[in-house]
Amino acid sequence: MVSPNRYDVTDWPVGDAADDIGEVINSIIADVRARQDRSDDGGRGKPGAVIHIPPGDYRLRTQVLVDLSFLRIEGSGHGFTSSSIRFNVPEDEWDDLHELWPGGSRVLVDLDVPDGAEPSAGAAFLVAREGSPRISSVEFAGFCIDGLHFEADGSGLDPENTYANGKTGIHVASANDSFRVNSMGFVYLEHALTVHHADALSVHDNFVAECGSCIELRGWGQASKVTDNLVGAGPRGHSILAENHGGLLVTANNVFPRGASSVHLTGVSRSSVTNNRLHSFYPGMVVLEDCSEVLVATNHLLRDSEPWTPFVGVDNGLDDDHGLLRVGGTGNSVIGNHVSEVLAAASVRPPGTTPVVIRLVDGTGHHVANNHVVATDIDPGTGESAFEAQVDALLGARSSRPLEVVTVLVDPASTANTVLDSGRRDQVVIDATVNAFRPTPGIGEG
Amino acid sequence: MVSPNRYDVTDWPVGDAADDIGEVINSIIADVRARQDRSDDGGRGKPGAVIHIPPGDYRLRTQVLVDLSFLRIEGSGHGFTSSSIRFNVPEDEWDDLHELWPGGSRVLVDLDVPDGAEPSAGAAFLVAREGSPRISSVEFAGFCIDGLHFEADGSGLDPENTYANGKTGIHVASANDSFRVNSMGFVYLEHALTVHHADALSVHDNFVAECGSCIELRGWGQASKVTDNLVGAGPRGHSILAENHGGLLVTANNVFPRGASSVHLTGVSRSSVTNNRLHSFYPGMVVLEDCSEVLVATNHLLRDSEPWTPFVGVDNGLDDDHGLLRVGGTGNSVIGNHVSEVLAAASVRPPGTTPVVIRLVDGTGHHVANNHVVATDIDPGTGESAFEAQVDALLGARSSRPLEVVTVLVDPASTANTVLDSGRRDQVVIDATVNAFRPTPGIGEG
Amino acid sequence: MVSPNRYDVTDWPVGDAADDIGEVINSIIADVRARQDRSDDGGRGKPGAVIHIPPGDYRLRTQVLVDLSFLRIEGSGHGFTSSSIRFNVPEDEWDDLHELWPGGSRVLVDLDVPDGAEPSAGAAFLVAREGSPRISSVEFAGFCIDGLHFEADGSGLDPENTYANGKTGIHVASANDSFRVNSMGFVYLEHALTVHHADALSVHDNFVAECGSCIELRGWGQASKVTDNLVGAGPRGHSILAENHGGLLVTANNVFPRGASSVHLTGVSRSSVTNNRLHSFYPGMVVLEDCSEVLVATNHLLRDSEPWTPFVGVDNGLDDDHGLLRVGGTGNSVIGNHVSEVLAAASVRPPGTTPVVIRLVDGTGHHVANNHVVATDIDPGTGESAFEAQVDALLGARSSRPLEVVTVLVDPASTANTVLDSGRRDQVVIDATVNAFRPTPGIGEG
Repeated sequence: MVSPNRYDVTDWPVGDAADDIGEVINSIIADVRARQDRSDDGGRGKPGAVIHIPPGDYRLRTQVLVDLSFLRIEGSGHGFTSSSIRFNVPEDEWDDLHELWPGGSRVLVDLDVPDGAEPSAGAAFLVAREGSPRISSVEFAGFCIDGLHFEADGSGLDPENTYANGKTGIHVASANDSFRVNSMGFVYLEHALTVHHADALSVHDNFVAECGSCIELRGWGQASKVTDNLVGAGPRGHSILAENHGGLLVTANNVFPRGASSVHLTGVSRSSVTNNRLHSFYPGMVVLEDCSEVLVATNHLLRDSEPWTPFVGVDNGLDDDHGLLRVGGTGNSVIGNHVSEVLAAASVRPPGTTPVVIRLVDGTGHHVANNHVVATDIDPGTGESAFEAQVDALLGARSSRPLEVVTVLVDPASTANTVLDSGRRDQVVIDATVNAFRPTPGIGEG
Repeated sequence: MVSPNRYDVTDWPVGDAADDIGEVINSIIADVRARQDRSDDGGRGKPGAVIHIPPGDYRLRTQVLVDLSFLRIEGSGHGFTSSSIRFNVPEDEWDDLHELWPGGSRVLVDLDVPDGAEPSAGAAFLVAREGSPRISSVEFAGFCIDGLHFEADGSGLDPENTYANGKTGIHVASANDSFRVNSMGFVYLEHALTVHHADALSVHDNFVAECGSCIELRGWGQASKVTDNLVGAGPRGHSILAENHGGLLVTANNVFPRGASSVHLTGVSRSSVTNNRLHSFYPGMVVLEDCSEVLVATNHLLRDSEPWTPFVGVDNGLDDDHGLLRVGGTGNSVIGNHVSEVLAAASVRPPGTTPVVIRLVDGTGHHVANNHVVATDIDPGTGESAFEAQVDALLGARSSRPLEVVTVLVDPASTANTVLDSGRRDQVVIDATVNAFRPTPGIGEG
Repeated sequence: MVSPNRYDVTDWPVGDAADDIGEVINSIIADVRARQDRSDDGGRGKPGAVIHIPPGDYRLRTQVLVDLSFLRIEGSGHGFTSSSIRFNVPEDEWDDLHELWPGGSRVLVDLDVPDGAEPSAGAAFLVAREGSPRISSVEFAGFCIDGLHFEADGSGLDPENTYANGKTGIHVASANDSFRVNSMGFVYLEHALTVHHADALSVHDNFVAECGSCIELRGWGQASKVTDNLVGAGPRGHSILAENHGGLLVTANNVFPRGASSVHLTGVSRSSVTNNRLHSFYPGMVVLEDCSEVLVATNHLLRDSEPWTPFVGVDNGLDDDHGLLRVGGTGNSVIGNHVSEVLAAASVRPPGTTPVVIRLVDGTGHHVANNHVVATDIDPGTGESAFEAQVDALLGARSSRPLEVVTVLVDPASTANTVLDSGRRDQVVIDATVNAFRPTPGIGEG
């Protein structure tokens, strides 16, 4: 009774996985459906299947539609390499490169996406099933989804630097339960992973980089986790975004630039963003918008300047008083975080502004305690870029000096907050008659 | 020399895995034992084996006995779907359901467990070996263990809602070293995973839900980790329990209801419960009983009300002054946690009690610092359930108001504690002559 | 088109994997190289391959050279068992042992390493490729690398207890991107895993124990993570070491003894060591040397005494005023940690010294807040070892009493620091005229 529930895309009679893995996987899914019925034969059910994608290049010309529970699509290599670096190497040097493309178990997304199409239309893998129960236990593991190229978008950027191509790696459209996305690689997609209406989702140990947006939890959801991922979005996108989630745990992620935001939560309640390492080139790194009772704790936030010539001058458009960590809603906690802000004072925008680190913009009852901000003015010399100055400062080749910042700004629209030990009295802007405030003691005050 | 150490339960000449996977795996283990001896042939040993369980339904009528080191039993799908929801759908609607049962690589536990049998008797997988060295490096990965049905227990609950059937998924009875339980699914078992006497155990990235108790580390143990799991026990069981462990790390778990407790430690020393997201419907969410020097930090705790009709009125029997986080023993630390308590003041038990969030019940030297409690009275209207009021409050459809709570209660039996910035002076009950105390500043006190 | 990119070392025509898996894997790599070229065929590239190592014993007589991107070498069992315990059991009892050696998918490193050879010479797996792009997405997963024996080193220790044999498990010599080391086992190697020049490296969920040094990130690197590992080095080595890294995330690890250090960072900037459980027998557990803006938060540190006869008297040579957590550089944060120090006062070295827990040795702007230290004098009786006393104290068989310690020592060479709530006034040594200081309130001061 050798199992019929194990498939290999390279050993399936319908289609040619190298030419169109989408056709092959859809044919396999049809086979699973035809073989497995729902009969409740003393506990027997519809167990699903595993589909193996061995290392190799597989073009995807047909969108895969997943509408079965218990389907695991599994490769043997996340296959990331930097396409962004490659496309910014002059073409006449390409002959010297060891390889040009990502690899591993690699799906080359070659869909024709019409302008203005719904995001789901450009998805390599679309998961959709209505009715009850919610589609459950679909798993994606260990393969690479590569969007191949970005496209001109009128911004004046080189087409390969736009982070736009209308392509999505995995798009989950229907309410779902107990999904897993593990050990995957995503590269050069406008949207890497978009999951609507998730319950008990696990997004764990993936490599999601050089995508417009990376991990987007849309609509609403609950009791999910985004853990232990390496993530970095494009300058206009989100590295990790969640809408209207409750009980979300975002932890142990290493989020690198760019990304208009590193973690953006909107309408999220009673959730955690803890213990992440976050790095951004712009203000608005961590955003809590209309959020309630979210814990942001023991994260490391670094904001410094764009180092790479192709992207110098590209940013998310926000001013430096926007707040690196911007909080609105009710009863959120910001505890025990370290923030490093490294800027040339002369580059602060708009000129004359004092950069703001933690900003409470509205709502009540936020609790900000025990955060440590280190702000450094890297003071570039004539003809030196902010990044060159930053490197020089790090190497000790120039002396850096403290940058004046507001460590916590409490807007008048936000009241009844508690701000403890998160900046000296001269670093915090707060109306202490309508908030609770204890400044970090200054030198010699002990 | 194609490896003889790789087995597939669907391709083994003894037994029929679909009818009794237990017989098949025991036969495979006997084969490994017969082929591998202990001779120290210049470093050669007894390497063990891997046993594959492809996706499919496999009845287990015979308990598996694992008594070899280096055995990995591996499937291709944790296969969770909610049996609890299904069994609470009226039967006449079952025809409309896409599927009735969990799936993936699914073991259907069909053991006949006599009443009053030892817990090990009802285990699908029993791991036991005495002598030296301790049995090592047994791994369970990527499959589903399904107990199929719960049973009437005299409680008056629907049999499928009792969380009782005498079945255990994996029961490790002997002292063991370097075990791994990864990416597994457990459902509808009275006990999912019970491990006695663990050293350097890793329980990582599993889905353990709708089981009476989920992860139980019994007897004693050391240097283990329970990380990055999705977990939720029944109303009378434990989601994560540990006895007499040292150096245990419980982190990055998302623990949802029910569960009489979310994390229950008894006799545990010098261990960590950090960075988890915990959700419960009852008091006694996190319990440190006779524990010493345990760190409970940067967790998010939410306690609200049972939302689901079949379980309304079912709870763990504890009063609201029991403490959501209850601490006894010596020198424990409770630092930087966020607690959300959402209750109808009128439903507090016993009536007139002020709910207690952190309670130090005995011992000395506990350190409670920098915790933030948000307590909300959801004030249900006439004829509205607590849960309906809760949803209305969350949606803004009704105004909620603060709930009066004791954020920290230090019992007279506990002294020499330090309580800092974990509640205003009017929210903390403490004898400041025998403890150290600094209240969170109130509004206007800065 | 059954995939040609999937290999099995036990089913390859060149060499004999049982006799020399190194020869076999090098032959496979040569085959991959010969079959895959770099041609940019409409997006097709060089996808690499997966090489399976089934459970079994595989001698390695030839070093493996990995110089291809997208290569995954994968086994089915990390196979750890304690060789250290076995070699310290009298030989005449070996006949009673169930097994003598580690197992799983086990590589027996049988290289002849000349004295004084470069560390790379003794590596079972050497990864090296110069030129562009950096070698990417090489993955090691799920197998065991066993150095078999340690060797006499003139220290007087039993040869099997020296932690020296010139062997390395995996040595990455070249700049690299997006590597993964997951679910591996390493045992009895002088160096387990050494990675130079890492970018976006993930070292996740491994078992690295009984090795001289365990995880060493050498040279420089960025945006990497070391997460969820079980780790323990030898008395003279490092459990986790990083040089000149930026944006490193070290979290959710359970690091047990020995290890001259648990986490040693040198020249590291803007990184995180959070949420780990760390256990050591010596001072100098966590070292930040010339580090800037590193966050050390919500870790549990336990330092107690060597329990095991073969190693009693072996230590890292540091005195007890060295600091368990020793910080130098600029602007580091030490927030919300729990420290347990368990010593016999009479054994403190040098006699009469007060042990130091957190020591700021140089630099400026460090932030130490909200740490809790529990120090216990285990007071051994006559003829009782420190460890016996420690066990007796834990079991309540003798009364223990507080040990006098300095919770924070700020050296005169370090100024402009902030120390808050990390020890009572009598426990902190600080010049409050050049630092900011707020002591933890004492009993009755509230």
